[in-house]
Amino acid sequence: MSKCIKYHLYSPPNQSKHSDQKLAPTRYGVVIFPGFEVLDVFGPLEAFNALSLSYQLNLTLIAKTLDPVTSKPQSAAMNLFNSTFGESIVPTHTFDTAPDLDVLLVPGGLGTRAPSAQLESLIAFIKERFPKLKYLITVCTGAGLAARAGVLDGKHATTNKKAWVSTTAWGPKVRWVAQARWVQDGNVFTSSGVSAGIDVTMAFIDTVYGNTTATSVANYMEYERHPNSTDDPFAPLYGLTDANNSTNQK
Amino acid sequence: MSKCIKYHLYSPPNQSKHSDQKLAPTRYGVVIFPGFEVLDVFGPLEAFNALSLSYQLNLTLIAKTLDPVTSKPQSAAMNLFNSTFGESIVPTHTFDTAPDLDVLLVPGGLGTRAPSAQLESLIAFIKERFPKLKYLITVCTGAGLAARAGVLDGKHATTNKKAWVSTTAWGPKVRWVAQARWVQDGNVFTSSGVSAGIDVTMAFIDTVYGNTTATSVANYMEYERHPNSTDDPFAPLYGLTDANNSTNQK
Repeated sequence: MSKCIKYHLYSPPNQSKHSDQKLAPTRYGVVIFPGFEVLDVFGPLEAFNALSLSYQLNLTLIAKTLDPVTSKPQSAAMNLFNSTFGESIVPTHTFDTAPDLDVLLVPGGLGTRAPSAQLESLIAFIKERFPKLKYLITVCTGAGLAARAGVLDGKHATTNKKAWVSTTAWGPKVRWVAQARWVQDGNVFTSSGVSAGIDVTMAFIDTVYGNTTATSVANYMEYERHPNSTDDPFAPLYGLTDANNSTNQK
Repeated sequence: MSKCIKYHLYSPPNQSKHSDQKLAPTRYGVVIFPGFEVLDVFGPLEAFNALSLSYQLNLTLIAKTLDPVTSKPQSAAMNLFNSTFGESIVPTHTFDTAPDLDVLLVPGGLGTRAPSAQLESLIAFIKERFPKLKYLITVCTGAGLAARAGVLDGKHATTNKKAWVSTTAWGPKVRWVAQARWVQDGNVFTSSGVSAGIDVTMAFIDTVYGNTTATSVANYMEYERHPNSTDDPFAPLYGLTDANNSTNQK
């Protein structure tokens, strides 16, 4: 991660280098909601599934209820071609029953656009759990959910580039960084859109479990890592720049 | 795809270019089994979910029963650190009830190593459905399942590079290509390991729905496409070469 500019390692956490598994996080949780983006969840989880073959880890999938949660768009306006296309995954816990966690992953997706009432319990869960986490990871517009929970205030973060304007509006006190595949600020890792979730996860594993482990996981996945967190062609593609955003220059 | 060498477009299908949605496939199916690799499934499905926002598509998730199917390793020998880590997805149909399909996606994973009896119905399903498909896509060691169904015999194909020896042994009549991120042979698309499933899916969408659509899907996913099917650093990483495999040179 040596090429990261300063806000990508803004305030390295105390737990940033673990050579001893006893110090590494073991309790992982992922929040899921209707209309979640599947690669936001399963890009990172592919890597963590692989990691769990080398470390004793456990996972909880957390939703409002224990009913399967679908990725399908929840409004007709988001499914203009009337497709019947989506996947359902099974939560293991609810927001009320989730155990203590070391790491919380917050994915994004069209479901982050749901009426606020439908996301209240999820956002409250992020807010309540954040102080007790070792690490928070957001993918894509999941940063918008974390921003609405207030846990990104004052921190450098990034999010989906296509949905940049609407997502960053959720966090007026967040130091949004457009030109970034991912951003690390202390114990908070945020990624750009969808497939960038794999890269932020690799950066997380590299930071927490070491480069050898991260390389091993990437090779298992036959994944060519993005070595530089600021190498992001999608910021210019969607016309985004950090030049006029003074809070990002601090 | 202009850089593909000959066996990557060995026998272009009659349906290879559809400018008219009426001719494009609409009925997608994915087979799932215990111990499936999650990115093998959800890398491609992320892209197809996005595609379904622009085309009227439907999806069936097909398993032995309608019970949720877990990605967890099914044997203690594959979970040496006793992790509790995995995800369950919900099938929509069984091998007996699946509707007619245009496209079948076959993922891989540790579950492809299950005792043969546990995979018989899945392999029989691939064999029975293949002649009626417009397209078959395999990801990772999913090629081994297709090979065991006999549907890759005589065709050029690739598979996971780390599991190359054991997987290719399942298809002695397959023209295995080691130096490939993905291979297209007629209406059969096969990919290398895990994350390569995204690339074969992009190649599939490019071939069937056109480059503009493929680019749109990739940009939605903020995914930088691998433009060259033969650009595969994992073949040399795992010591694989096509030099001594005469069947691949035809």
